[in-house]
Amino acid sequence: MAIVECIPNISEGRRQDVLDACANAITETGVRLLDVKPDSSHNRTVYTFAGEPAEVRAAVLALFDAALPLIDLRRHTGEHPRMGAVDVVPFVPIEGVTMSDCVAMAKAVAAEVADRHQLPIYLYEEAASQPSRHNLEDVRRGEFEGLATKMAGTDWRPDFGPAQPHPSAGASVIGARMPLIAYNINLATHRLDVAKKIATAVRHSSGGLRFVKAMGIELGDRDIVQVSMNLTNYEKTPVFRVFELVKREAARYGVEVLESEIIGLIPQAALTASAAWYLQLDRFHDGQVLENKLRG
Amino acid sequence: MAIVECIPNISEGRRQDVLDACANAITETGVRLLDVKPDSSHNRTVYTFAGEPAEVRAAVLALFDAALPLIDLRRHTGEHPRMGAVDVVPFVPIEGVTMSDCVAMAKAVAAEVADRHQLPIYLYEEAASQPSRHNLEDVRRGEFEGLATKMAGTDWRPDFGPAQPHPSAGASVIGARMPLIAYNINLATHRLDVAKKIATAVRHSSGGLRFVKAMGIELGDRDIVQVSMNLTNYEKTPVFRVFELVKREAARYGVEVLESEIIGLIPQAALTASAAWYLQLDRFHDGQVLENKLRG
Repeated sequence: MAIVECIPNISEGRRQDVLDACANAITETGVRLLDVKPDSSHNRTVYTFAGEPAEVRAAVLALFDAALPLIDLRRHTGEHPRMGAVDVVPFVPIEGVTMSDCVAMAKAVAAEVADRHQLPIYLYEEAASQPSRHNLEDVRRGEFEGLATKMAGTDWRPDFGPAQPHPSAGASVIGARMPLIAYNINLATHRLDVAKKIATAVRHSSGGLRFVKAMGIELGDRDIVQVSMNLTNYEKTPVFRVFELVKREAARYGVEVLESEIIGLIPQAALTASAAWYLQLDRFHDGQVLENKLRG
Repeated sequence: MAIVECIPNISEGRRQDVLDACANAITETGVRLLDVKPDSSHNRTVYTFAGEPAEVRAAVLALFDAALPLIDLRRHTGEHPRMGAVDVVPFVPIEGVTMSDCVAMAKAVAAEVADRHQLPIYLYEEAASQPSRHNLEDVRRGEFEGLATKMAGTDWRPDFGPAQPHPSAGASVIGARMPLIAYNINLATHRLDVAKKIATAVRHSSGGLRFVKAMGIELGDRDIVQVSMNLTNYEKTPVFRVFELVKREAARYGVEVLESEIIGLIPQAALTASAAWYLQLDRFHDGQVLENKLRG
């Protein structure tokens, strides 16, 4: 069985009828809708669904069909940066599919959406056509309002579709990435400076591990601090290495790790890799997991 | 989906036609035959299969139907202790079934087999009718040859079936247990005495952890020693605790742990629990595992 996860973000977080129409469009294709997270101050909603590649592809096309007539960015306000009515669509390999499969899916869907709706599409992350388009923040800079100017230059011609914004729907960003793990480590101290120093030490942007984003924050209600992280590639920067590095940095300040937590979901493989590392399990392979053998 | 695993041991390890007949009887019911391990010096074969409870029940009945006419213990010799043609049948809860479900299955199958073949059946492990019948070794003591005498006393009346051995098939032991984990830890030393001392320290029989069987052995080809273990209930005596205790005991002798290994299969939950413990993951639950959410 092959499973792809998809987490489209649309630029509507308030009108329930629009959110329902989009959810219906998605689920009618047979995928499993795992989560819907509307945010009214962001005026944005994140759908999470998963299924066989063909179903997921159909669900994304159906979502564009449903959302585009209902969302007009010329009248959209919200706190979150956005460039399109359907703003971002990442495909994530979960089981029985490779990253290249997801990149191929992203390109095929991008081509079809561009053609169907005369909508400019940028490819991002693993599907990016050039390094400068890898990061979503760079692609989206200038947002919907700056799109016409941005597209007029040679650097930001879209990967698919016309080189001018769709009047109401702007442009969409479609791509492929690894599953994100939202991972926090709580420290047995109220010293925010320690959490911030550790975040600086471990995150990629300031010299730390390649696939870690981190910040130090206060958990006011518990009088402790937290290193709040996103792990963007758990295969290359595994959870256990992040935990051990944070623990070591904390020890430098005489601070203990109180606990850690996963927010939302974590792939089984990330947990299995951690168990195997700590237990020093050599020659271990996924086929030894009883459930995998039963399903294999 | 509910999955029960079953690991019947039959008293035949040499005649391929008998082994094939038994395998066919099992697979015709729709279960998934995961492994067949014949041992000719033991003159014994271990089948491992899994499936929906109703399928597994049918497979066990079919196995008795097939094996009993073909195996005659009056003419059976082998190194391994045995009491029945179909010697031992454990049911193991894997997914969506509880231990009580497996105990109930064991009793129902025992009653049906006893009735169909006029075969005495003892229940063991979690299905045992009294504490003295919990351990297989105790139930099987005296073997096929001592069975008539053993049954004549009041202590060893069978749980189902007649109180006299089946002429050719003896008696069978049916029960329910947790999945076994065969877990070895290799030490960076050639000192067998250290491996033996650690095995003594950690195993239940000599004062150690409740669900650990252990012995110290030499790995002659690598000039190192090993603490070779069976973990009989990974929920109550988890893998990480065994590993940490062995490591601590080894340090007492100035010895390092080189690596550990899983022989055969391990339930996913045992790995997840280890990851959660080492990463100090609080408030973590199985619903946060992406794959579980997708299948749930």
